Amino acid sequence: MSHSEDVEACLPAFAGSFYVAATVAGSRARASVLRTAHGPICCPVFMPVGTQASVKSLAPDELRALDVQIVLANTYHLSMRPGPEVVARLGGLHRFMAWDRPILTDSGGFQIFSLGHLSLLTDDGVLFRSHIDGSRHFLSPERAMEIQEQLGADIIMALDECIPHTADRSYQKLAMERTHAWASRCQRAQRRSDQLLFGIVQGGMEQELRHDSALYLSEMDFPGYGIGGLSVGETKAVTYEMIEACTEVLPEVKPRYLMGVGSPEDLLEGIDRGIDMFDCVLPTRIARNGALFTRTGRLNIRNAANTLADEPIEPDCHCYTCTNFSRAYLRHLFKADELLGLRLASIHNLHFLLDLVRGARQAILDGRFPAYKRDFLGAYRSTDQAVRIAQKERWLAAVRVTSKQGSGSAHGKRVASTQK
Amino acid sequence: MSHSEDVEACLPAFAGSFYVAATVAGSRARASVLRTAHGPICCPVFMPVGTQASVKSLAPDELRALDVQIVLANTYHLSMRPGPEVVARLGGLHRFMAWDRPILTDSGGFQIFSLGHLSLLTDDGVLFRSHIDGSRHFLSPERAMEIQEQLGADIIMALDECIPHTADRSYQKLAMERTHAWASRCQRAQRRSDQLLFGIVQGGMEQELRHDSALYLSEMDFPGYGIGGLSVGETKAVTYEMIEACTEVLPEVKPRYLMGVGSPEDLLEGIDRGIDMFDCVLPTRIARNGALFTRTGRLNIRNAANTLADEPIEPDCHCYTCTNFSRAYLRHLFKADELLGLRLASIHNLHFLLDLVRGARQAILDGRFPAYKRDFLGAYRSTDQAVRIAQKERWLAAVRVTSKQGSGSAHGKRVASTQK
Repeated sequence: MSHSEDVEACLPAFAGSFYVAATVAGSRARASVLRTAHGPICCPVFMPVGTQASVKSLAPDELRALDVQIVLANTYHLSMRPGPEVVARLGGLHRFMAWDRPILTDSGGFQIFSLGHLSLLTDDGVLFRSHIDGSRHFLSPERAMEIQEQLGADIIMALDECIPHTADRSYQKLAMERTHAWASRCQRAQRRSDQLLFGIVQGGMEQELRHDSALYLSEMDFPGYGIGGLSVGETKAVTYEMIEACTEVLPEVKPRYLMGVGSPEDLLEGIDRGIDMFDCVLPTRIARNGALFTRTGRLNIRNAANTLADEPIEPDCHCYTCTNFSRAYLRHLFKADELLGLRLASIHNLHFLLDLVRGARQAILDGRFPAYKRDFLGAYRSTDQAVRIAQKERWLAAVRVTSKQGSGSAHGKRVASTQK
Repeated sequence: MSHSEDVEACLPAFAGSFYVAATVAGSRARASVLRTAHGPICCPVFMPVGTQASVKSLAPDELRALDVQIVLANTYHLSMRPGPEVVARLGGLHRFMAWDRPILTDSGGFQIFSLGHLSLLTDDGVLFRSHIDGSRHFLSPERAMEIQEQLGADIIMALDECIPHTADRSYQKLAMERTHAWASRCQRAQRRSDQLLFGIVQGGMEQELRHDSALYLSEMDFPGYGIGGLSVGETKAVTYEMIEACTEVLPEVKPRYLMGVGSPEDLLEGIDRGIDMFDCVLPTRIARNGALFTRTGRLNIRNAANTLADEPIEPDCHCYTCTNFSRAYLRHLFKADELLGLRLASIHNLHFLLDLVRGARQAILDGRFPAYKRDFLGAYRSTDQAVRIAQKERWLAAVRVTSKQGSGSAHGKRVASTQK
């Protein structure tokens, strides 16, 4: 099913709008179309991450061949390098990275809060140090809007406060209220009319706070909503509970974007709970470690068992990698540190997730989503929860160390007293 | 001009043969077609190097888009990893790396001799250590044939002794004679009839030895000839002199391959002196350092001058990189250590050399090669000779250190006394 056929089949609504084409009884799952300045997006959709204006190891023509509809780029990284003014002078992100389909940028807050770049947080904004040269920068809701307008993505995100999942309830509430105040300031600061500004639901791991946050932001009437602060170390049961607490309140007529979540099981569970959009570095990051998705779980291509394996990663996979190369060749590329290995693995993993979500969308349209989800999850062995959380914490710790070596920054200081 | 149109235009001769379509008065330059088991090759031709069965950072579909006619793979590297038996079990190199056009493999000798893996050399063969695990291996002419038959390339090379350009005349003569004896043993050891075995002319930097070597091998009637041991630290004037000493003797009815030489000026000077085939890691290796070919010389993409440069590397270049991306974006990718940068730079540099050689071939067919060469060399500023030689020595030294760290091998020992 090609992108354009799919769009036609869904009767896209007028520009800037969101159209729900099909729903599922006993589920919040829906198939929809979101219109943006660079064309429509068929949802549910998985968005590959191009942190520094490049989906790692892949060129735009490969993303098109994968039928990627929209990519995400990170405002934090791009404002540090090459700088939003440079991107603006070069005609904006689309032209800069030669990608003419939709782009979404985050606000830059997540990297500052989660990766240890924070120096000082007040109601006014965040003071932080660059991971590249240690220089000081200030990010406020107004500045987050200004930068994202310079970058020129189709969907931009309000600045939110991202907190550890272990924060106590009083701080979770405080951070949520700050997020609401910042959302309002972002709305007021927005100048460009061709960008869709999404508000972000926060509220930590408290059902009631999530509910309140979703309600508060719904009343602000954003063209779409992000759900932030999930999949940050909590169990999957809690993640799914928090998603539900948000989607049962968020307006049905607006797209919902679950930020930074993208394991195969999370995609289907998220769709079932009413999520329309997902992004995650997972498929490309694990690909570069030689971990490949299959219908039965992850495969480590470096394993000796693949030395003489003449078959593709998955026999019925239609990606460029599986239609051309054996497991044995991929293993050789990884063992020999050949760059092509990183790329062929990234192509396969992205195809796997994109295809899973496209399949889910078609299943929703065909009225067979529950069976689709059940069949997939029945065959797919997820990564063990303890292993998964430990991996994530190791990765975050590694990124923090790297950042601190680069910036020499001290531990961040959060200022809990508000200026209201 | 596409590959297939070009082949049709040249009226390819029958399988296994070499057909000279045009020559140039006052020059040894010629346009020709060499038929191989995987199709014809239009010469002069530049062959990108896929050391470990992958042209670094590029996939086969990109090589096809670049109209690459033939790639080179290194027998030394492939026999260390994954091993010739593995490649054979997986159906040979073509299937292994998903490349259905011609492939050439070298004998493996060059890496052993030049990169410090040598342990002991006798007339029988070479004892060396693996750069991967330090294990001991023996390469003889017979074993070089056996391995290359397992790999299954279309063109295979006889084992030769490669010596430093500073070796004295008596050793140069000895090494040449050993190379001749080995060439004869390779001929006798060859079993497969679908591979073209090329002999290799040696003789160091001595015109008379080069002449003798070319004459000796010519009489052995190989289907083609390599010229080895050049561009190893000597001046370009000497390189060109040695090429001439070979090509004025080698039979006109056989293809001539100048091994490991590939700067733009060397390609045109080599073609002018009767060379039909070239290979070199230069375009892809310097690309990964951010050095890009232009008609006026090399460009360093990291330079600050490219920060806001909205134009492509070369305005009239038709490669994927130049038709899609600005210098500013490429600079960003290099500064941000994005993998895509390595690849876009490799595509451009390969396109540049392939196009230069295709252009030379067309110029020969059109009777305007002298002007083509003069115009190109008039505009192109070559890398300064002293800088070039110093760079090459630094690179060789770095590779030797890496290899020795990997293998823990002692200095090699050459045994000058023959067993005759």
